[in-house]
Amino acid sequence: MLEVAYQEALRGLAEGGIPIGAALFDAGGALLGRGHNRRVQSGDPSTHAETDAFRAAGRRRDYRSTIMVTTLSPCWYCSGLVRQFGIGSVIVGEARTFHGGHDWLAEHGVRVTVLDDARCVELMTRFVAERPELWFEDIGVADGVTR
Amino acid sequence: MLEVAYQEALRGLAEGGIPIGAALFDAGGALLGRGHNRRVQSGDPSTHAETDAFRAAGRRRDYRSTIMVTTLSPCWYCSGLVRQFGIGSVIVGEARTFHGGHDWLAEHGVRVTVLDDARCVELMTRFVAERPELWFEDIGVADGVTR
Repeated sequence: MLEVAYQEALRGLAEGGIPIGAALFDAGGALLGRGHNRRVQSGDPSTHAETDAFRAAGRRRDYRSTIMVTTLSPCWYCSGLVRQFGIGSVIVGEARTFHGGHDWLAEHGVRVTVLDDARCVELMTRFVAERPELWFEDIGVADGVTR
Repeated sequence: MLEVAYQEALRGLAEGGIPIGAALFDAGGALLGRGHNRRVQSGDPSTHAETDAFRAAGRRRDYRSTIMVTTLSPCWYCSGLVRQFGIGSVIVGEARTFHGGHDWLAEHGVRVTVLDDARCVELMTRFVAERPELWFEDIGVADGVTR
């Protein structure tokens, strides 16, 4: 399932965007929606990879059996999405380059798996080194100092 | 400033949608973006009022001096948005019909004001009574039991 999210991240990079991808699956592994960060491409700061995949999956009544797969640890915005809609499981490609809210999600009953995938780490490490101002903008770090 | 958010909520209701509105202002009170919930109108579960207003404001480097005004206490998804992007202040129309993450935001340094506005309370009370299934869908309550 991470492969789908990773390919979305690569698609975002190819579009000149921030290379983070995500996909939402049902309990049986069927793809419900996939997407990637669109800050640059759409000039839309509200479309993170997870929200894009969530939107692509359309309206649903129950997310408890769904699985959100993302190449990078979800930020507070995307972690809030997971908690509010009761998404049951989150699979995180890596949490080295950014440590978001996945511990908080685990505390609140979400099944969280961090894969520490080398390709995901390499993709974001390179991007953050090359485009730090864009990365900091995407996570709301106004002055370039990560907190 | 609440009037702008309230008018957005009414616009959403007139469109057949969920009547929650929001607006983002700068420190001087200038409007940066306004919007409303679009679950029904756009079939988009990711567009809550706050995310719609945030999107409408476009890309920004620094949200610390901005003020998010919303007719209803922000859910975890929208609270996560506020925290991640460092939005400095949140003004909540009411928190009677739904108690979201505004206490959590206050704990994390966001200036939170709850106005307990009678018009906002009345609007949501009526909507939840008339369309409970739509309301529960919007906050991810799969079985109609609020937790």
